[in-house]
Amino acid sequence: MSAEGPQPTAPVFRRVGVVAKASSEEALRTARELDEWLARRGLEVLLEEAALRTGGDGWRPFVPGVELDLVVVLGGDGTLLSVARALERPTPILGVNMGSLGFLTEVHRNDLYPSLVRVLAGQFALEERSLLRVDLERGSGESRRYLVLNDAVISKSALARIIELRLEVDNHLVAQFRADGLIVSTPTGSTAYNLSAGGPILFPQLPVAVITPICPHTLSLRPLVVPDTSDIVVTLHTDREEVYLTLDGQEGAALDVGDRVRLSRSERVVHLVKAARSFYESLRGKLRWGG
Amino acid sequence: MSAEGPQPTAPVFRRVGVVAKASSEEALRTARELDEWLARRGLEVLLEEAALRTGGDGWRPFVPGVELDLVVVLGGDGTLLSVARALERPTPILGVNMGSLGFLTEVHRNDLYPSLVRVLAGQFALEERSLLRVDLERGSGESRRYLVLNDAVISKSALARIIELRLEVDNHLVAQFRADGLIVSTPTGSTAYNLSAGGPILFPQLPVAVITPICPHTLSLRPLVVPDTSDIVVTLHTDREEVYLTLDGQEGAALDVGDRVRLSRSERVVHLVKAARSFYESLRGKLRWGG
Amino acid sequence: MSAEGPQPTAPVFRRVGVVAKASSEEALRTARELDEWLARRGLEVLLEEAALRTGGDGWRPFVPGVELDLVVVLGGDGTLLSVARALERPTPILGVNMGSLGFLTEVHRNDLYPSLVRVLAGQFALEERSLLRVDLERGSGESRRYLVLNDAVISKSALARIIELRLEVDNHLVAQFRADGLIVSTPTGSTAYNLSAGGPILFPQLPVAVITPICPHTLSLRPLVVPDTSDIVVTLHTDREEVYLTLDGQEGAALDVGDRVRLSRSERVVHLVKAARSFYESLRGKLRWGG
Amino acid sequence: MSAEGPQPTAPVFRRVGVVAKASSEEALRTARELDEWLARRGLEVLLEEAALRTGGDGWRPFVPGVELDLVVVLGGDGTLLSVARALERPTPILGVNMGSLGFLTEVHRNDLYPSLVRVLAGQFALEERSLLRVDLERGSGESRRYLVLNDAVISKSALARIIELRLEVDNHLVAQFRADGLIVSTPTGSTAYNLSAGGPILFPQLPVAVITPICPHTLSLRPLVVPDTSDIVVTLHTDREEVYLTLDGQEGAALDVGDRVRLSRSERVVHLVKAARSFYESLRGKLRWGG
Repeated sequence: MSAEGPQPTAPVFRRVGVVAKASSEEALRTARELDEWLARRGLEVLLEEAALRTGGDGWRPFVPGVELDLVVVLGGDGTLLSVARALERPTPILGVNMGSLGFLTEVHRNDLYPSLVRVLAGQFALEERSLLRVDLERGSGESRRYLVLNDAVISKSALARIIELRLEVDNHLVAQFRADGLIVSTPTGSTAYNLSAGGPILFPQLPVAVITPICPHTLSLRPLVVPDTSDIVVTLHTDREEVYLTLDGQEGAALDVGDRVRLSRSERVVHLVKAARSFYESLRGKLRWGG
Repeated sequence: MSAEGPQPTAPVFRRVGVVAKASSEEALRTARELDEWLARRGLEVLLEEAALRTGGDGWRPFVPGVELDLVVVLGGDGTLLSVARALERPTPILGVNMGSLGFLTEVHRNDLYPSLVRVLAGQFALEERSLLRVDLERGSGESRRYLVLNDAVISKSALARIIELRLEVDNHLVAQFRADGLIVSTPTGSTAYNLSAGGPILFPQLPVAVITPICPHTLSLRPLVVPDTSDIVVTLHTDREEVYLTLDGQEGAALDVGDRVRLSRSERVVHLVKAARSFYESLRGKLRWGG
Repeated sequence: MSAEGPQPTAPVFRRVGVVAKASSEEALRTARELDEWLARRGLEVLLEEAALRTGGDGWRPFVPGVELDLVVVLGGDGTLLSVARALERPTPILGVNMGSLGFLTEVHRNDLYPSLVRVLAGQFALEERSLLRVDLERGSGESRRYLVLNDAVISKSALARIIELRLEVDNHLVAQFRADGLIVSTPTGSTAYNLSAGGPILFPQLPVAVITPICPHTLSLRPLVVPDTSDIVVTLHTDREEVYLTLDGQEGAALDVGDRVRLSRSERVVHLVKAARSFYESLRGKLRWGG
Repeated sequence: MSAEGPQPTAPVFRRVGVVAKASSEEALRTARELDEWLARRGLEVLLEEAALRTGGDGWRPFVPGVELDLVVVLGGDGTLLSVARALERPTPILGVNMGSLGFLTEVHRNDLYPSLVRVLAGQFALEERSLLRVDLERGSGESRRYLVLNDAVISKSALARIIELRLEVDNHLVAQFRADGLIVSTPTGSTAYNLSAGGPILFPQLPVAVITPICPHTLSLRPLVVPDTSDIVVTLHTDREEVYLTLDGQEGAALDVGDRVRLSRSERVVHLVKAARSFYESLRGKLRWGG
């Protein structure tokens, strides 16, 4: 249960991917600078632009089959989420924030080059984060698979009235209830939407998922933390209302009555290059917990 | 601050309106029965069907200018909300629930005729409920006015990311924050969406409104109860996301960046024919508060 | 419903009371300075030290019968609460904070003399705050009356197990439930303990009280806002556990099974000399609501 | 991460302990009946009475060194907690509730004998529950160790004002904050006090602990789920107020400024004889989650 993942002894970096948030002028400019900076150090660089939602599910950055030793993400937590989902192998990811510090992109833009110097010298640890596998099983028999690093959200549209959901875990009926929606979050996503909806904060490496209702009509419904190996199934019982499944707040699909969303831990993981701050320091700083 | 409104001494009922929820077979059948029952007692009856959202803002039940002495609503709380907003004068409304008891439609279908016998004999009290006036002021200069008995909600669509809102009360900036949305509710609406979002329950006749954020990113943001005569202004600061204003959960309008929603107590009120249970008994029964 | 109370036209200050928090060296030193400063301006000064809890219920600052035109409180919100309860007449109170700004003591120590110059020149408004009358009615027939400006709290001791309370409002049973306790708060107290326990923030001049359960076992129990003229009765149903009634967090009395606490608006009010900031500005600043 | 623990193949029961809640006439009467019933089946029976708090920390049921094959607890969840802490070895415990069903004592009094027949025939599973080790480290250098199955609570007395606590996890400062107190709960305890204070529900076999503030003054403070192997340290920063450490709501110790409470997973575990209902069914039934 350690925050420290596999420590690469003598890492040799040959090929570095750089992804810049397409809508950020600063990210794009920094990417071009970084390209030169890395090339001067003899590294091969692959550049990409991430346009969040348009790049959605089908987006695959970099040439398929080409192995990267490191990916530098220039953007915010959102950009990192889309890169993390899209990478086919657990390549180390270094997140560099262009604005305010995020929970995932902990390196500030001004610390980019000092941080990279340390990373290229092998002075870093990797932090492993788990992904959730999300299967959308249509009433029609079709199905489609997604991955999320933060969360999967089932929620009504703004104009819809309250919706009814049925939650089962490991084939046990847990609740059938009316609400605005439901969040199933990884520990990584626990500080995002889950927190706003009243869910708990989870230490990042815990083998758990948290199921948090959004504005439940049933007042006794509370966030529920379960093993991430659980088979979590959410079924939409409501007809005639607009309901969506949203993945990491970026991709989405409309749901129909009878559709099921099935979630469990993915075999894939994400490797984050660990920045200076510990998880608890990040929490304390971002949430102003005093001391 | 009494729950008892004006007690009509010797009410004479001549003309009764009956509104049935169009999508409920039982409501429609009951309406036809009730029509005959009232006619046998020498009363003139006007029948309407309420199709909730389609009937939205433009819907005006009954012939304009014809004065009614009583309106019987056969449906749920939603049907009563749409009738209450649409009536031009504060005609006494008797809400009859076709399914489970609501907070507004407290008379059960099986008690319809005994309740009506008492009402026609003048054995009832009226409860006054206030309405909020909601002005949607477009950045373009256009504006449009709505009335709500429960609440006005500004919220993002399911696929939108978090939105940023600015809240001012009586020309004081109160908060500028990111959230899923914001509810401004009357006391009547406090047991509806406001309660699911974590807001307090308000005694129905209080001269107040409650402003409740929906899943705020700013964790210190809490429900705020203000005089209902306050000038409450919510401005949308977010660009490029789908955001809606929803009135009593039934009507809606898309919002653009810079649009303002201005709310204050309306001069119009609604008169509910008071059923047997007190407000506190309703609460205790519906929320299972023991005792 | 205005925040502005009676505006004294041509106030003439002759006699000023000064109360300093006894445990604060700075408050005591400031009091001596202030004594001289006021005396040089020809004002008669009465000095007191407030030792919070020891001064509790029996404490009466200043000579009974001597009328004061202004009371300056040097301390924190707690000191002001104890002075406000103890004053027999609604003398204008100016709260000066020795540490971080409070909701009641809005004048910072460094602004003491400039603020006083304006006040003595009549450049101020008075803000009226209501008090709750709290009657502790013993099962034995004895009873005792208290006043609170913030809140009355019924709560179990740390070592007690959960307690059972019965809540009635205007002779209606509202809830019978198990919890750590219950808060009945004025609008003034809504930003204090009530806020920590999940209750809403109330605009200071609203004619309401809020009843907020502390860690209720009954998960559907929520804060309830009622008219402050309501007759609120809380009865202790639990035997053999240590339970206390606490007034403004300062005075207390042990409760026995069958004891009732009855609360309603007092006829007495408190007059605060209004500082520069509006209520909404205070909220935004203290709770970091952005903007 | 399975709910099913070690399944004893061919269990042979020779010696059964029976503990009855001393304050329950029905528990005591049932214990005498059960004694005869077990003796008729050739089993050796050891009878005890559990007087909750008086039996506190020093209480050791049964003769030390005598090994039991099964302990039947007749009482409520509280009785089972005190037996679970007191047992020196992980003897299987069957909890029989004399009143309403608990989360731990799932067998109803009326199902006692049918349940026992199945258990004695080996038709049962064991569910493993972890304990937290709680070390109270005095500023004076003294220390004392406790075990809890549900939770350790640090909280102020009813008459105390708000207290200040410092929370560290694995030598990282997490928060320094003012509150009524703090709960550190096992998954087993998550449905008890933690739930009332706003904490999440945890699946019973998760390797985690949840740290939940009680009525925090710092509004951004939220429940935090950490590995149960974490070194959790809570230090009391407040002077002059009455503060207590409470263990499973039953034992307690007064805390002084500078005292530290250190918590981590104990090596000891508890084995519960699993009743018919799954964890999720218990939740749904007790919290009325519909379906």
